[in-house]
Amino acid sequence: MRDVGRFDLVRASPGGPRLGRLHTAHGVVETPAFMPVATHGSVKGVLPDQLRTLGATIVLSNAYHLAQRPGVETVRALGGLHTLMGWDGPILTDSGGFQVMSLGDLIKVDDTGVQYRSHVDGRAGRLRPEDAIAVQEALGVDIAMSLDECLPASAAPDAVARAVTRTRDWAARGLGARTRTDMLLFGIVQGGLDPDQRTLSAAGLCALGFDGYAVGGLSVGEAREDTARVAAATVALLPRERPRYLMGVGTPGDLIRFAAMGYDLFDCVLPTRNGRNGTLFTRQGKLMIRNAAHARDSRPVEEGCACYTCTHFSRGALRHLVMAREMLGAQLATLHNLHFYLTLMHAIRAGIAEGSFPERALETGGVWA
Amino acid sequence: MRDVGRFDLVRASPGGPRLGRLHTAHGVVETPAFMPVATHGSVKGVLPDQLRTLGATIVLSNAYHLAQRPGVETVRALGGLHTLMGWDGPILTDSGGFQVMSLGDLIKVDDTGVQYRSHVDGRAGRLRPEDAIAVQEALGVDIAMSLDECLPASAAPDAVARAVTRTRDWAARGLGARTRTDMLLFGIVQGGLDPDQRTLSAAGLCALGFDGYAVGGLSVGEAREDTARVAAATVALLPRERPRYLMGVGTPGDLIRFAAMGYDLFDCVLPTRNGRNGTLFTRQGKLMIRNAAHARDSRPVEEGCACYTCTHFSRGALRHLVMAREMLGAQLATLHNLHFYLTLMHAIRAGIAEGSFPERALETGGVWA
Repeated sequence: MRDVGRFDLVRASPGGPRLGRLHTAHGVVETPAFMPVATHGSVKGVLPDQLRTLGATIVLSNAYHLAQRPGVETVRALGGLHTLMGWDGPILTDSGGFQVMSLGDLIKVDDTGVQYRSHVDGRAGRLRPEDAIAVQEALGVDIAMSLDECLPASAAPDAVARAVTRTRDWAARGLGARTRTDMLLFGIVQGGLDPDQRTLSAAGLCALGFDGYAVGGLSVGEAREDTARVAAATVALLPRERPRYLMGVGTPGDLIRFAAMGYDLFDCVLPTRNGRNGTLFTRQGKLMIRNAAHARDSRPVEEGCACYTCTHFSRGALRHLVMAREMLGAQLATLHNLHFYLTLMHAIRAGIAEGSFPERALETGGVWA
Repeated sequence: MRDVGRFDLVRASPGGPRLGRLHTAHGVVETPAFMPVATHGSVKGVLPDQLRTLGATIVLSNAYHLAQRPGVETVRALGGLHTLMGWDGPILTDSGGFQVMSLGDLIKVDDTGVQYRSHVDGRAGRLRPEDAIAVQEALGVDIAMSLDECLPASAAPDAVARAVTRTRDWAARGLGARTRTDMLLFGIVQGGLDPDQRTLSAAGLCALGFDGYAVGGLSVGEAREDTARVAAATVALLPRERPRYLMGVGTPGDLIRFAAMGYDLFDCVLPTRNGRNGTLFTRQGKLMIRNAAHARDSRPVEEGCACYTCTHFSRGALRHLVMAREMLGAQLATLHNLHFYLTLMHAIRAGIAEGSFPERALETGGVWA
């Protein structure tokens, strides 16, 4: 427990990719790592044992959603989020600022926090930065996120500037409200696409001192070049010795690209959501399994893939299950996609360790790289 | 392969329960056995490896549904139904007479067979008894069912009599159309609730000689006493040396009750469908996981249960997943229910083997027994 929060940089080059070991109360996360998304407390369609087998070491959940349903007191009564999920590895939760703003009705944001109506039961709720910390502490998560104000890419400059100030103030208040020493707390850099605002945001958070730093407000509708430009500029503003989390990113190519810049943690709904929709990640690109061309194709989704799906089912079989809306189709597609993502992360880490990054990752990523 | 169709009665008492071993092209089924339902080629929410772990030895699929989607030629192109399903154990298919009559629009049944409109694409189709055999042979199943005319419990006496004659004629035509020697073919006894018609039906089928005999037309809306009465009367009409399959039955108590009469095979959607709806089978009865009383209950669904669900999740956690409509909730409930059913079947077999039937099964079945 005394190691909680420690981040060992096993290998790192200035401005380049890093191999790290992040110590949490529920184990060590080897970075760069991808976090499968378990918004409501489950990675949709995947058992905890399967997650382990796939190579997941940490999952992402969402404090706002869990606070709405089943409720913080219920999670606590059930032994905390790890027990609820049947997952004894590390859990990072987003505070839910993003979800409140994108899902809630009648949102009102001011300097004190967020007022919203629950998307579950319509009840009025209030989320202050202190509440966000209290909720995440009650859930018993390993890594908590500060409450932030996340704006769409189209936000006006004054709104961006105000969000930067607010996010910094909220981060300070959350930091002050923290009581658990076994929970890491990350600050979130905002600032839209404006380099000056990003600099201001990062400086403010770094001065406060967090266990790690997230870069938020990307993948919110901006052009891909902007994502890369801002991500690159921002990572340079973050302290070398703390983990860096690029929120909501991304495609397999993004994982390689941003790991190369020195980001350590990633999350994205793509492998799971796309899986449920019948879109499979392969080294040759996206495979839309609903396409009639796959109906009688007895090859696996990906030749040579070692995942459960590819070793047990043909493309034609998977297509049938998806077309017939069998739950198993969504499960199998999700398993394959997570295998693709987590194998890619393994290749990224192995490449950095062996000095063969990015070649090894590019090879594993195929056309995505 | 030369053993295909062999049925060894390991232990049997006249008019009582039997312990058997049914040899198929994909392995031996120890009976009495329960067949999880995989109508469209998957047991909803369950991976083939999980089915094995749960103790399933044979699954039930549906020739009519598979013929509609993905189509017989597609299944054949994909290597047959076993390959499609990723399941290398025995598969029994219902011919689909029941489904055609219950699902199809504009059904017309005459002595030549069934005319229907597909419930999938509305296309007109024709299912003659010979077609039913050809389809099941093309799918490559281990045990095929003859096409039968299955009527609701409310059917008039003359309709029942006509269905008995027709089912016998269709069974004869199917038997004549069979070409595969590695596929067992069962006849289906009809006759509604009329003992004379059941006698007539069984006699007609036994004279033709099938690899096994199914009792159909029960669990179609009749009173429970009628089910038991007809099932008991009919089993006495079937040859001792061949397997007997009671179609669509039933509750855990039914499994014990009808195994005690000498039935060998069972199938039912209850464990899987109820699981998806949040109804769990326990020794104490049905547990409706959506009930608010379970919200903060940290006990497993069933104390002492060795299934994956009960060893990893609390009632409260499962309730949350079900209420949040997470796929994992349906998966976990299904796993538990199948574990309950298959453990009960194991207890039935062990009890017969050890001379402790029904005591051991009654103990395992709890209030269901």
